[in-house]
Parts: sequence; C-alpha cells; structure tokens
Amino acid sequence: MKSNSDKLKITPLGGLGEVGKNMTLLEYEGRILIIDMGLNFPEDDSPGVDYIIPNISYLKGRKDDILGVIFTHGHYDHIGAVPYFLNKLGNPPLYGTPLTMGIIEKRQDDFPNQPKLNKITVEDGIKIEMGPFKVEFFHQNHNIPHNLGLFIETPVGNILHTSDFKFDKTPQNGPPTNFEKLNELSERGIHLMFSDSTGAEIEGSSLSEKTISRNMEKIFQKAQGRIITATFSSLINRVQDIIELSEKYGRKVIIEGYGMKTNVELAQNLGLINVKKGTLVDRKNANGLPDKETTIICTGAQGEERAALMRITNGEHRYFELRKRDTVVFSSSVIPGNERTVQNLRDDILRQGADVYHYKMMDIHAKGHAQSEEVTRMIEIMKPNFLIPIHGQYSMLVKHKKLADKTGIPEKTLIVENGEPIILTPEKLYKDEKTVNAKPVMVDGSGVGDVGGVVLYDRKELAESGIFVVIVVLDKKTKKLKNSPDIISRGFVYLRESQDLLAETRNKTREIIKEASKSRKKSKPEEIKKTMERKIEDFLYSKTKRRPIVLPVVIEV
Amino acid sequence: MKSNSDKLKITPLGGLGEVGKNMTLLEYEGRILIIDMGLNFPEDDSPGVDYIIPNISYLKGRKDDILGVIFTHGHYDHIGAVPYFLNKLGNPPLYGTPLTMGIIEKRQDDFPNQPKLNKITVEDGIKIEMGPFKVEFFHQNHNIPHNLGLFIETPVGNILHTSDFKFDKTPQNGPPTNFEKLNELSERGIHLMFSDSTGAEIEGSSLSEKTISRNMEKIFQKAQGRIITATFSSLINRVQDIIELSEKYGRKVIIEGYGMKTNVELAQNLGLINVKKGTLVDRKNANGLPDKETTIICTGAQGEERAALMRITNGEHRYFELRKRDTVVFSSSVIPGNERTVQNLRDDILRQGADVYHYKMMDIHAKGHAQSEEVTRMIEIMKPNFLIPIHGQYSMLVKHKKLADKTGIPEKTLIVENGEPIILTPEKLYKDEKTVNAKPVMVDGSGVGDVGGVVLYDRKELAESGIFVVIVVLDKKTKKLKNSPDIISRGFVYLRESQDLLAETRNKTREIIKEASKSRKKSKPEEIKKTMERKIEDFLYSKTKRRPIVLPVVIEV
Repeated sequence: MKSNSDKLKITPLGGLGEVGKNMTLLEYEGRILIIDMGLNFPEDDSPGVDYIIPNISYLKGRKDDILGVIFTHGHYDHIGAVPYFLNKLGNPPLYGTPLTMGIIEKRQDDFPNQPKLNKITVEDGIKIEMGPFKVEFFHQNHNIPHNLGLFIETPVGNILHTSDFKFDKTPQNGPPTNFEKLNELSERGIHLMFSDSTGAEIEGSSLSEKTISRNMEKIFQKAQGRIITATFSSLINRVQDIIELSEKYGRKVIIEGYGMKTNVELAQNLGLINVKKGTLVDRKNANGLPDKETTIICTGAQGEERAALMRITNGEHRYFELRKRDTVVFSSSVIPGNERTVQNLRDDILRQGADVYHYKMMDIHAKGHAQSEEVTRMIEIMKPNFLIPIHGQYSMLVKHKKLADKTGIPEKTLIVENGEPIILTPEKLYKDEKTVNAKPVMVDGSGVGDVGGVVLYDRKELAESGIFVVIVVLDKKTKKLKNSPDIISRGFVYLRESQDLLAETRNKTREIIKEASKSRKKSKPEEIKKTMERKIEDFLYSKTKRRPIVLPVVIEV
Repeated sequence: MKSNSDKLKITPLGGLGEVGKNMTLLEYEGRILIIDMGLNFPEDDSPGVDYIIPNISYLKGRKDDILGVIFTHGHYDHIGAVPYFLNKLGNPPLYGTPLTMGIIEKRQDDFPNQPKLNKITVEDGIKIEMGPFKVEFFHQNHNIPHNLGLFIETPVGNILHTSDFKFDKTPQNGPPTNFEKLNELSERGIHLMFSDSTGAEIEGSSLSEKTISRNMEKIFQKAQGRIITATFSSLINRVQDIIELSEKYGRKVIIEGYGMKTNVELAQNLGLINVKKGTLVDRKNANGLPDKETTIICTGAQGEERAALMRITNGEHRYFELRKRDTVVFSSSVIPGNERTVQNLRDDILRQGADVYHYKMMDIHAKGHAQSEEVTRMIEIMKPNFLIPIHGQYSMLVKHKKLADKTGIPEKTLIVENGEPIILTPEKLYKDEKTVNAKPVMVDGSGVGDVGGVVLYDRKELAESGIFVVIVVLDKKTKKLKNSPDIISRGFVYLRESQDLLAETRNKTREIIKEASKSRKKSKPEEIKKTMERKIEDFLYSKTKRRPIVLPVVIEV
C-alpha cells in the first residue's frame, strides 16, 4: 500500500479514549513505525479476563512494512502486549532504554515460544533513522526512570511525542526536567504534538518527588515499630527513596513480592538504585531484626489478593505477620475500581492495631502525570501547529483540548479515539474516512481473542444468579422418562437446603415430559429442550425471583 | 432474660465497621428499643445479591420484648430492612417523621404479605416514653429533611444519638443547625454519645448547601441548552434548589425516574418541596419546550444501568435523547466502586457533544456528613462521659476515636463493631464477653439468607472461567458408553469456534470411561464422576490455562 507522498497516516490502536494499552502507528508510503505496545487491565464487565491488548488486525500481512517498535518507557500499559505480538509481527526490531528493555526481556520468560528479542538499546540524546523517520530520544520525567519523549522528523513535518510525563525540578532519582532541551526541540518547529492527557483533569501541578520524600521522612521519624511500605513495583524512584530513608534512620530493608524483587534487581544492575552494602536483608534473616530497625518494601498497595501486603495482613505470609506497632504506608494512589478492596485492607490492618498512612491523609504519592498547568505549559513550550491529546479517557482528552484552546496556540486540536486514523500533511490534520478495527482483544489464560461478547455476557449472567442444569433421559420410542430427572446447579441456591425446590422442579419436569410425549412434534428433543428451558425458568422465577441460566439436556436412549 | 438493674446492654447489629445497614438495640431489663433498620448494597464479592440486611437471630423469640423501632431518617441505610423484619418481629410500633414514615410506607407496596404499619409519627421536640426509656427527638441537618437526633433518658444515664448529621448554618431547605438546643441537651448531662463517623476522615468542615446552590447557579447562567441534573432521589433539598433555580432562570422542570418522582411527590405533599404552579411539566409535553427553558431532574448519577440518565445517554429513553448543547450535571459524589461506570458514562455524554459538570470539577455536591472539625465540635458541645463512634468503616471509627482523644473529653471512646454488645452502667462502659451473631444476611430475589458463602463462591468461580458440563450415559451392565458424551458449557470459550477442543474433550472422556470400565470399583458412577472431574479439569487447563467449573454427569440406563 502506497500513500500519497505528502501524507502521513497516524493510526491509534490503543490509549486514546482509555487509560492503558497504548499503541500508535506512524505510516508513510506504506512503511510503519510503531510507538508502544501496551496492555490494559479488565474492568468489572470483563470477568475472568487477564488482560486486554490492542487489536492488530490492521497489521495483518504487513510484517515486511514494519520498521520497528519504539518503547517510551517500561510500564505495562506501554510494553505489556509485546509477548502476544512479536511472532505475529515478524519479530521486528525493538527500541528502548536499558531499563525498558530489561523489563520487557524479564517478562518474556513467562511466555513459551518467543523469538529472541531483536533489541536496540537507546537513551536520552540518541538519534536513529528508521526508514523515512528520524527519531531523537529525549529525557522526560515520570515515575519510572528511563522515560523518553520522542522528536520525530517525518517527510511532512516534525512530530513531538511527550510520552507519559510530568515536570519535576527536584526528582528523587535521575535528572530534573531539561527545559533547555525542550526549548531547543521547540525551536526546530513542531508540526504535530502528541501529549499525555492522563492528569489533564486535575487542576494545578503535580507534586515533586522531593515533597513526597519529605512527608515520607516524617513517618520514619515517628514510627516505633517496623515500617511496611506498599507501592507499585515499577515505582523505582519511590523504592530508592525508602531505601535511603531506611539507611538514614538505621533500618535494614527487606524487598518482598516477586515483581518488586525482580524490578529492584534489574534497577540495581543498571545502577538506577543505589544501596549501601548490608542494607538489603533476605527475608529469611529478617525476623531476628529489632522492629525499629526493619523496613519491608512490598507489593500489594491495590489490595491485590495474592500480593505480599494482603498475605501479611491475613496471616498467610510465610515469613511475616502484622504486629501491633507496625506502621503500614500505602505509597500509591488507588486505581479506580479498587477503592473498596483497599478500604477493607486498611480496616483489617487497623483492626490488628497497626498504624496506617495513605495518600489521602498525606502527600506520600506523587502522580506521574502532568496536571492541567503542566499540560498547558508543554503546549506553550512546544507551540505545535497541531495537537492530538493522547493517553486518556475521553473526558481527559476533552479537558486537554480545552486547555489547548485557551492557549490559542495549536491551529487545531483533534480529539481522536482508537481506530480513527489521522492524516497529517504539511498543511493539514484531519481524520481519515475509513476507520480501522480497534476492538479490544481479551487475553484469558493462554487464549488470545477467544473470549468475546457472548462468553463475557454468559459469565456475567452466571455471576448474577448461577446455573441450573436439568438432565432427562428418554426412551427413544415411548418418549417417556427412563430415570428421575437429574439436576445440577451452581451459584443459584444452596442445594442442600433447597430439597423442596428441587423436588418440585423434578415434578415440573416430569409434567413437561408427559405433556410433550403426547405429541409427535412436541416430543422431538429440540422441542422438549425449548419447552423445558422456558417453563423451568419461569417456574424458578416464580419461586425465587431469580433467573439462573437454565440448561436443559435431553438424551434419548 | 433479665439484666442487672444498673446495666444497659447495647447491641450493634449493623453500621459499625461498615457504611450501611444501621441497626442498634438498647436493652434494659430484657426490654428492647431498636434504632434504625437499614440495608446495605453488596460489594463486588457478592455478585447477584440485591441487598444485605442485618442479622436478627439475636431477636428470635423475643417479639414480646420489643418496645418499638425508632427511625432517625428516611435513607435506605436506616430504613431499608423494614419489609424483611416486620413479620419476624411481630409488627412492632415504628416511630419516625412524616417523611421517613412516608418513604417506609411507599416501599411496602413492593412487598407482598406485609402487615399494616403500626406507625407513630414524631417530629423535632417531641418526647415519648418507651418502657424504661424516655426519648426526645431533635432536629439535625443532613441531606434529607426530617432528620432527627435522639436524646434518650435511660435508668443508667442519658444517651445522645446524633443520627447522620452535619452542621449547616445556611441550609437550602429547612432550619439551620440549632446550636442552642444542642447546648441545652448537653447541659442535661450526656453519659454516652453515639456519633456519626462517616465523614470523620475528611479534614475540615462540610460545605453548606448554600455554597452548592451558588455554584449550581453559575451553571444555570452559562447553559445554552437543556440542563439535565442527575442526583440521588433522596436528596430532596438539592431537588428543591434545582427547581428554584429553574424558576429563576425561566425553565420548566421535568422529574424523571421512578424513585425521583415518588420522593418528590411525597415531599410536595408534606410541604417539603415548594413549586410554583406550572413549573413541573409532564415528560409527554416536554419535547415541545425550547431547550433553554428545560431542566430535567433525574436519577442515575451513579451510572446505574436502568436509571434515566443512562437510558437518555444510550438513546434508550422513551422520551428524551441527549442533544449536542445539553449540560449534564452530576450533583452527587460517586459511591466507591462506581468510579469506572460513572467515568464511562461521562465519556459517553461528552462524545455526544454535551457538556458535563461533576463534583470533582466544582462544588456541586455537599456531603451530608460531619467532617473532622464538625465531629470534634459535636464532642466539645456534648461533653459525653463515653463515646461510641457509629456509622462507618473501621478506619473512620479509628479516626473518630483519634479526634475524641485529642479533645480530652470522653473518659473512654470505645471502638465497637457489629455483633459486639456493650454494657453501660452509671460508672462504666465495656464490651460484653459474649458476642452476638451479626453475620450479614443476603437478599437475592425473594430469598432472604439462602445465598451464603458456598453460593457466592460458586458465582465468583463461574464468573472467572465459566462452567463445563460433560454428560455420559452408560450401559448399567457393560459400563460402556451408550452415546457420544454430551458437552454443554457457558462462559468458558466460544463453543462454535472451539470444535476441536470439544472433540478432543469427548475423546478424552471416552478414554476415561474405557479405562474405568475395566475395574469394578472404578466403574461405579461416583468414582467415574470423580475421575472425570479431575482429568477433564487438568485437560482443559493444559489446553487453555483456564479452570472452568467441571461438572461431570454420569447416568446409567
């Protein structure tokens, strides 16, 4: 497929109209550059689903057109779909920083039949050429180290991609925002900017990591027993901060939880976390330490069922249990949907007499995303001709556009959602007429895409009132019952205490079969099934006001 | 059961350690006064459950001991369990304000076999005697009119029950907080106070309804098209405010949604909502009105699937559809757990070009509960000897105790949870040794208490990976298969696209049966079932990495 030579086609496959599974294609004369390949976590309406990944049917049969994949940073909403896509896309070259590539590589271990990564390591300041595109990487602050914005020279004009970002003059780890560099990029002329919208609806500016550290230090000054901090394993900078504070206040540190351990190890190897010799202690040797000299850094700040913090609280952890004078710090905000779980976990910790700090009580979690003032400032610095707000729910994109409109700078801000290709020319930015299939793909167990609307609908119905299976065995000739009808049910009523209901349903079934056997047409198995389904459903509803899925099975012998 | 004559037993059956299903018993010499009978809404871990109500097994066989039930106000977490309890408790006398009793009465219509209410209407300032208790009702501000605190003289000392409350000097509807009265009650001496903890963790003071109204007016000044406001149907004062603003700005008002209509009607009849003649318009005549002269007040601010706002947004409403210049106002905070649903609803509204305001953008929702400063002030006014924080998750009760400890006033603040009876004497307050069964009771359809741990566990499993039923019919003598094994499944994989998997599973089943038929012991139906369950589960897991509930059915003919 060849495009017109003054047209660049931009196809967002994920991350626009949602927070998560970021993936965007830049396509010029049929050659494609991919930015990020993220995953998303399912909402309540997708029970049992493990992950949601972008739909790449647009890329089918186009392996040879793919120039490579650029990863802005190592968060799962930017890298999480890699193991599902590599084989399908012909194992293209992957560009990312050492940390990003390290996280991607580590994850590959969990997947069978993966090709050897075709990786190219990049860093701040590096310039590369990919077909018609020249890409320059530049440092951007976020809450994971090694986060890179992209300055992309294309035949139709320069594109700036902010990546996830925040401005931070006093970050805890790594360099501050390099405004000089940003200004320099701006001076080269930005034709189109893709900018992060995740925090656009929050007024003001994000907190500096320094502020968080100061508040965290207050907790260290006060704590009389162990300090247990739960955070995301990707918040490397936070972990570094807690390690430093522990060293300052004479505490040893135990890293707990698989994801936390691997990330810390990786970051240590890359020199992104600095630890004094003897600070880190293996959990096996931890219980000999005095409480006041112990810090545990663990996973589970979202109340995840199997994460370390939940197990410690429930007394199910192999090495640690909660103690009365422990101080538990939730150093991360709560992901929407997890509020109740986290509240219950906090309550359980308090019930055991431990103290709890969380981000609503104190600023101990810096969000990683630019808020309204920073979003505005980025526009003012870059002065792009055109703007496409990325990374965000629709309401965040709308807010971003409102902020842009206020600056009066972009000639045009376009709100785009997944599957809506955009054409950029030297003069214009507009939506392509044809949309692309961007229907989310569900990952469940080893299945990718085999769970769809019907299966999810059934799961929700099953969760609502359970299932009720009635099995009848009929004599092929007489159409009469050969046994008493069998009933099995799950999630409907507690069967042992509902013997009357079961007996009545068996009688009802006998009636149905008897009635059906009188007519040749009605006694066909398919007909009997239909009748049973309808009548038993109504019967159960009349008795219980519930509607389990009724599955009749008719067997003729 | 007779208690010691200097002992009052207090038994909380709901609302302590949770927000919802409030119910507390005061018991003196075997005679029982009940305060509130609320319900709670299920969390994610109780799929399919409609409501959760308190456990009243403690009251079994004690009909004659019940003096009556006092309702502080008409919210469902205070009155919602009434239809489930009346018959069981011998239809005791019910005390409440006209609005509270009106809401209770209205709800009775939905339930069959209810006795005629044995109701006694009370109001601010009324004093009644109930056995050994003298109860005086006093006005307290909240977000529903007719909310009453309780001053209860008991033989062991005076008890003050705040009800849900906030301080409001400029409420929108009804009288402001009567501090004079509160001081007067305090002067009589408060031995024990029960005080609302719902807002204790939020710093500062709650907003006055006046502030909300001013912000709301700004929206009215700006709106170019229709205004659609979604709020709780119980927020009568908010509804009154929106009606008044509509009148001021020349808009007619349509009340939409069943709950909203009945509550407004009830409040109008009681003179709690004042509407000018001609302001309210029937929806049937609404579409002739100019957009700028239309306000719709509706239900659905929590994104409820069948509520008016959702249907209007989805284009499924019989009378209204969303228009480009509509202004939609969510005038209520989001209940934890509903965040994602509400976010998606907001996005859908914005996608259609309408404008959206919500409480995070602007103060257009006054919470109904005292925040930390008000909680503290209530303690300072009442100066109780003892304090029991009520109405709240454990963390809220803990915060309430911390606030109380700071004042230095109560001699003792006791954190109590449901099912932990308390003994109050003229000198002391302490926990009784024996706890009471307060295990929540689930209401599902017409069943009360028949959904328990096992059923909920199954529902969650079903939602996670579905169900897989394999039916084999065996010859009783030869133990050989008479038919090809039948498979039915829901919520696992999309069967039409998984014919290979089904065929393989049938083969696997044939193998199992063949193997079993060789041994007399193994070929017993119960044994075959066990083998099938285990082996098919493992087989499906090896193929899909999922674990549906496998239900084998073995029929011998």
